[in-house]
Amino acid sequence: MIMEEDERYMREALREARIAAEEDEVPIGAVVVCRSRIIGRGHNMTERLNDPTAHAEMIAITAATEAMGGKYLNDCTIYVTVEPCPMCAGALAWAQMGRIVYGALDPKRGFSLYSPSLLHPKTVTEAGVLADECGSLVSEFFRNKRN
Amino acid sequence: MIMEEDERYMREALREARIAAEEDEVPIGAVVVCRSRIIGRGHNMTERLNDPTAHAEMIAITAATEAMGGKYLNDCTIYVTVEPCPMCAGALAWAQMGRIVYGALDPKRGFSLYSPSLLHPKTVTEAGVLADECGSLVSEFFRNKRN
Repeated sequence: MIMEEDERYMREALREARIAAEEDEVPIGAVVVCRSRIIGRGHNMTERLNDPTAHAEMIAITAATEAMGGKYLNDCTIYVTVEPCPMCAGALAWAQMGRIVYGALDPKRGFSLYSPSLLHPKTVTEAGVLADECGSLVSEFFRNKRN
Repeated sequence: MIMEEDERYMREALREARIAAEEDEVPIGAVVVCRSRIIGRGHNMTERLNDPTAHAEMIAITAATEAMGGKYLNDCTIYVTVEPCPMCAGALAWAQMGRIVYGALDPKRGFSLYSPSLLHPKTVTEAGVLADECGSLVSEFFRNKRN
């Protein structure tokens, strides 16, 4: 069930994605919210850090567990502009993320393509929040790359 | 095909795993080797860092890409004492790791349980190097925890 605040927090994830775009990174952003507070933010930094693990979600999860002082994020929601990849889904499973809200689908590398499920069994997911805006940010990025 | 040097490097991964054990972390270790040189090492640090993403492989991959000055590890082999989880397999896929050599199987969370494959199509895998030693380190750790 999509909630009223979901669009608001997705706009925060989109802000992160735009920071990535400005830094010439694939524009994906994420925020982790716990009890109406953003406790972790991240945007893709794989180029700048030369690190294939530096996805938006990974950075936001690490920031959130640091803020919480604990490894588990059962009471939290992550908002991410694009469907997480298997690496990030695996990280979300270890963190036992309560809820995952994402924007655009990733029909090539999205976690939902794999079975059995890569997520923790208690994690709730919601797809398609501001999907057009989230997706067009990425497609524009790659279109500009090709020109 | 298991090579002569595989046991030698797996012993280095086991050294890392033992450091984790001493720090009361689940004892899993990894090293990344490129042209007969160890360019990244890591052991599980999830408890100490309060970070569910701080697996041995993730730390070793980040160290190796830092050492290489590039995001891809096609010419490298990672030695890891236990079969990687989906998060780490996803990271190994992004890094396009050339070869993965692991010790003990993980019949609960190992990447090989999932389909389609979580690895890069060009990655070669080898299981079972020093499997007993690698596996008993973990099972002893949990046996001591229960006592």
